[in-house]
Amino acid sequence: MKALVLERQNCLTIRDIDSPAPVGPDDVRIRIHTVGICGSDVHYYTHGRIGPYIVKAPMVLGHEASGTVVEIGSNVTTLVVGDRVCMEPGVPDSNSRASKLGIYNVDPAVEFWATPPIDGCLTEEVVHPAAFTYRLPDNVTFAQGAMVEPFAVGMQAAAKARIKPGDTAVVIGAGPIGMMVALAALAGGASRVIISDLAAPKLATAKHYPGLIPVHVGSGASLPEKVLELTSGWGADVVFEASGSPKVFGDMMASACPGGTVVLVGIPIDPVLFDVAAAQAKELRIETVFRYANMYERAIDLIASGKVDLEPLLSETFSFPQSIEAFDRAVSARPTDIKLQISLE
Amino acid sequence: MKALVLERQNCLTIRDIDSPAPVGPDDVRIRIHTVGICGSDVHYYTHGRIGPYIVKAPMVLGHEASGTVVEIGSNVTTLVVGDRVCMEPGVPDSNSRASKLGIYNVDPAVEFWATPPIDGCLTEEVVHPAAFTYRLPDNVTFAQGAMVEPFAVGMQAAAKARIKPGDTAVVIGAGPIGMMVALAALAGGASRVIISDLAAPKLATAKHYPGLIPVHVGSGASLPEKVLELTSGWGADVVFEASGSPKVFGDMMASACPGGTVVLVGIPIDPVLFDVAAAQAKELRIETVFRYANMYERAIDLIASGKVDLEPLLSETFSFPQSIEAFDRAVSARPTDIKLQISLE
Amino acid sequence: MKALVLERQNCLTIRDIDSPAPVGPDDVRIRIHTVGICGSDVHYYTHGRIGPYIVKAPMVLGHEASGTVVEIGSNVTTLVVGDRVCMEPGVPDSNSRASKLGIYNVDPAVEFWATPPIDGCLTEEVVHPAAFTYRLPDNVTFAQGAMVEPFAVGMQAAAKARIKPGDTAVVIGAGPIGMMVALAALAGGASRVIISDLAAPKLATAKHYPGLIPVHVGSGASLPEKVLELTSGWGADVVFEASGSPKVFGDMMASACPGGTVVLVGIPIDPVLFDVAAAQAKELRIETVFRYANMYERAIDLIASGKVDLEPLLSETFSFPQSIEAFDRAVSARPTDIKLQISLE
Amino acid sequence: MKALVLERQNCLTIRDIDSPAPVGPDDVRIRIHTVGICGSDVHYYTHGRIGPYIVKAPMVLGHEASGTVVEIGSNVTTLVVGDRVCMEPGVPDSNSRASKLGIYNVDPAVEFWATPPIDGCLTEEVVHPAAFTYRLPDNVTFAQGAMVEPFAVGMQAAAKARIKPGDTAVVIGAGPIGMMVALAALAGGASRVIISDLAAPKLATAKHYPGLIPVHVGSGASLPEKVLELTSGWGADVVFEASGSPKVFGDMMASACPGGTVVLVGIPIDPVLFDVAAAQAKELRIETVFRYANMYERAIDLIASGKVDLEPLLSETFSFPQSIEAFDRAVSARPTDIKLQISLE
Repeated sequence: MKALVLERQNCLTIRDIDSPAPVGPDDVRIRIHTVGICGSDVHYYTHGRIGPYIVKAPMVLGHEASGTVVEIGSNVTTLVVGDRVCMEPGVPDSNSRASKLGIYNVDPAVEFWATPPIDGCLTEEVVHPAAFTYRLPDNVTFAQGAMVEPFAVGMQAAAKARIKPGDTAVVIGAGPIGMMVALAALAGGASRVIISDLAAPKLATAKHYPGLIPVHVGSGASLPEKVLELTSGWGADVVFEASGSPKVFGDMMASACPGGTVVLVGIPIDPVLFDVAAAQAKELRIETVFRYANMYERAIDLIASGKVDLEPLLSETFSFPQSIEAFDRAVSARPTDIKLQISLE
Repeated sequence: MKALVLERQNCLTIRDIDSPAPVGPDDVRIRIHTVGICGSDVHYYTHGRIGPYIVKAPMVLGHEASGTVVEIGSNVTTLVVGDRVCMEPGVPDSNSRASKLGIYNVDPAVEFWATPPIDGCLTEEVVHPAAFTYRLPDNVTFAQGAMVEPFAVGMQAAAKARIKPGDTAVVIGAGPIGMMVALAALAGGASRVIISDLAAPKLATAKHYPGLIPVHVGSGASLPEKVLELTSGWGADVVFEASGSPKVFGDMMASACPGGTVVLVGIPIDPVLFDVAAAQAKELRIETVFRYANMYERAIDLIASGKVDLEPLLSETFSFPQSIEAFDRAVSARPTDIKLQISLE
Repeated sequence: MKALVLERQNCLTIRDIDSPAPVGPDDVRIRIHTVGICGSDVHYYTHGRIGPYIVKAPMVLGHEASGTVVEIGSNVTTLVVGDRVCMEPGVPDSNSRASKLGIYNVDPAVEFWATPPIDGCLTEEVVHPAAFTYRLPDNVTFAQGAMVEPFAVGMQAAAKARIKPGDTAVVIGAGPIGMMVALAALAGGASRVIISDLAAPKLATAKHYPGLIPVHVGSGASLPEKVLELTSGWGADVVFEASGSPKVFGDMMASACPGGTVVLVGIPIDPVLFDVAAAQAKELRIETVFRYANMYERAIDLIASGKVDLEPLLSETFSFPQSIEAFDRAVSARPTDIKLQISLE
Repeated sequence: MKALVLERQNCLTIRDIDSPAPVGPDDVRIRIHTVGICGSDVHYYTHGRIGPYIVKAPMVLGHEASGTVVEIGSNVTTLVVGDRVCMEPGVPDSNSRASKLGIYNVDPAVEFWATPPIDGCLTEEVVHPAAFTYRLPDNVTFAQGAMVEPFAVGMQAAAKARIKPGDTAVVIGAGPIGMMVALAALAGGASRVIISDLAAPKLATAKHYPGLIPVHVGSGASLPEKVLELTSGWGADVVFEASGSPKVFGDMMASACPGGTVVLVGIPIDPVLFDVAAAQAKELRIETVFRYANMYERAIDLIASGKVDLEPLLSETFSFPQSIEAFDRAVSARPTDIKLQISLE
């Protein structure tokens, strides 16, 4: 079975690996159709590690995937062979305290595709628990199906924000995750989403979505000035931080309204200077996001209903033999690149 | 100053009344432009009372209004003369315990337009607290502005539901309030809203909104069957009761998912038989709605952003001299009538 | 292995049954020490059914249990042989949608001790999943351990209420569940808990707990009058219905404050007349309770810390050979009986 | 009328000031009985400013007060002359957006006693809105009444935490505010509160409260180690930061459980280094506290019911002529000092 293997830092190969384990009673076997490239895949490629997760042995990359069910376990009742599906890449211990609480994403025992030492899904077939495999309606393409994973991060952020209908939201950072957050917030109840970036080309895609208000930071008014102007001086109900930059924390808090909410989605590499007194003066609530839990069904529903259109975020699709080329393109991404995918069919 | 006065049950006149009190320091004076007719106005006309509220003296009708600021009090900083505005018809005691808690709608001291003995706004001018008067953006018409009041009821229902992004919602009853609830729920985060009614013509308007799924109850599958089919057997996350009919409570609970939410918006005249054990078996949360609080700004934001379009709900506009005719039309409403308005300009 | 078997309605025997299945990798084997008698056990005994659950074959009774771990499965890391424990009697499908959401109590697949056709635990040994078996600290007795189950119902009610520190709470009904709810609400943040009953003897135990205010309904002021007097006319923040009586629903709503919460714990046999408009006038939130989820650890913590003392609720302890006598005592309970237990040691 | 006046930094005098304005229709006049000394009073004395608030003109100090109503305005119905009361020192604009939302503490227009340029209450009489004046039950002393203000900060923190019954809480910092937070958390639903400090003497008072577990940081195990030991490795549900020290943020996050909550009560002078990724890995929610809103009634209820006993926190009471001495004692506080008060009677 062919796979895209990160042999070690800066070294990718396409080569044979062992076939997956047999299908257990609660599992399904899936033939992979499409896999998206995530910033974390690229980071493992270029740095060989992310924080405490270190690539010590060859590892298959990829965790944003869609495919087709080709075999089901004896207990499986929710799926049938032939179903088009997408998969949650993290599988927790279903008996853990976190899982029992419904927050299985923070279960310390989670095994997550393409997070060392767990292999990812850029390969021909995977065996996966049916409970973390979701049927795609007919009107949701494999390409969209493979974008459910990053969109679920945006959904988690929007859910954590507890958006009230008609809220004004701000998203700082118009990269792939920022765009996913913005679309989730807009579909999730915001009347409008102000999305900001230092790089003007990144805001081009935002312009195609009614309800998104792109703000090019660095030209003209500051983000807080713009937000206060649009909200009669009150501020935004919710501010999502999706850049990971330590420099935006001041603007982030200055953009929020009294009693507002900040959601930290971007992951700064180093600790950030945080003005506690400024947050207290508005009594801000600060939520943090770690992947997602219980978001796939609702993410798929929003795509299927047409409220969320992810297709404009797809910048280019590569064939599986072009995988290494795709990763190299991701390393030196064009300013307008949002999502690159690899098709195995 | 001319006004539409309910002299007593079944007797409306257009006649002169006293001009409003002088503008206090925190008030504004508003020239009324458009007033919508609400079911409660009609009910006072035909029954002379609603529950404990009895028309014992002549009363001006009307509480869904937009207009133009013509004078401002000395303390007012949020509005200027010439502002196009809409008004919250209920004014609480701002020092009450409920007001301090932010739930001023349930302050027992609220004075509400066209609720005996308080006069309504179907007249030339009103004086109103600036704190309950809201500026309309240029792209929101007076007709829409006068629909903010009933839409705010829908917004309150959607806010109470605490919709999570991508929820599936059901609205029982496709009358004016049902439609307002459905549009608020859809804009407020639902992926889709199933809206049901016994009368097929009432569902015609729903068909014009993508995301609304009309279900004609009485033909074919029952509402719970339809909901379970659309949700892979799980049920709806939120069910809004907007019919006021005691007959729908069984379907309402059968349509909800385990751990789901029911929001009671419709007001049944008599106590309803309620199957507590059935609600407990799914551990449903049941929210109730009484008007609204803190919903006008966000309702206006959703209309101004284009996420909510109320214009299709406007069935016909009458001139002020046609007011009595308008009320008689409302009494014997056509099956497709949703909102009737009276224009004073 | 001896067990207390409900052969059929009105027929209990103590007789041999098969030993439990072998211990699976995620299970533990427990030697039962103490089992409490619940109203549902008694109801199956006297009526042979509860709603849709019908005793069609002999069934071991009992689901409120504590004991000692005597064997552990190969995967079990949270318990060791010799641990004193209590057990959650309901085991869900850990892969179900409800379980993934953290609301495993409403998983339709739950198997619950002594709910037909599942055998209960009034027997010498049981095999149970480690994930639903909880270690008792040294200062928590087996008797208290066997009361964690009914106390968890009170905890679920208190958690659903989302008590804010210092809330005034009301509990309607001073039976075993009412007392559990009252103690959970008091420990859970209420400043005081008004507990009412028609039967004066049932309130005797309440008098021993500082913070509980017993109200004998039927003598003197009505419950709402008493509540309004104690709250300067505002009403109670939370009202728990723990009697199951349809007659109290009016008092229940009249006792709640504007914006208050009602929690339905008691299970009325038939549908109840419910005044929707009265609930809406105060915009009440109504929560319903079905058993509990994720409550055992925190229930045990409250008992171990001394904040909750369940010992006064224990009316009498019977030996295992006296089990049938214990059930007959429960059938014709004395007015002051709260909890009866059976000790197998 | 005599008052304690901060003439300028480091200069206090007791001298005559003008009597308060006449009593408006919604106001009451109060003869001051007891005033507590807050850290902010001391800070204005020693530094002449707190952040942006600068003492530019003589200002009366004091904002923690109790007293007796001696005159009521014409609209006042909730109080009568002779009522023993305590007062919320911050008065918002009741028409503001924040006030309408129920979060009047973050209204930018709030006028707060002893925050420049607003005079405090260390004087003979004050005129205050009845809506922010609260009757003390007979069993609550003036000394306790004057501690409701700092206790309300603890209550706000406990309310923001949304403690679930039986939560394990941690409070970092055993100064006056830390103790108030700990008592509010314990009464507000925690099963136990671990309270830590670097200074062992400060923990002496904590030892008198069952349910508080003092941890002397710097001797033996670290705070996170201690917390994990007490929670079987899971961590605390809620961690309150009440020290204001930037050094504790690491321990704060390491002590919290997955999905847990951090509440920032202490106000660090400078921005703090904050490890966003560490907070995200557990998906922590971070709440911030600014004074309080809607906490006085419930704070008083907890004191009156006996669930919270503030008397042990009172270190010493000074007479009004000793006021300057009292402040100098506060400046060089003894290790065991918690609350100093000044009695004007």
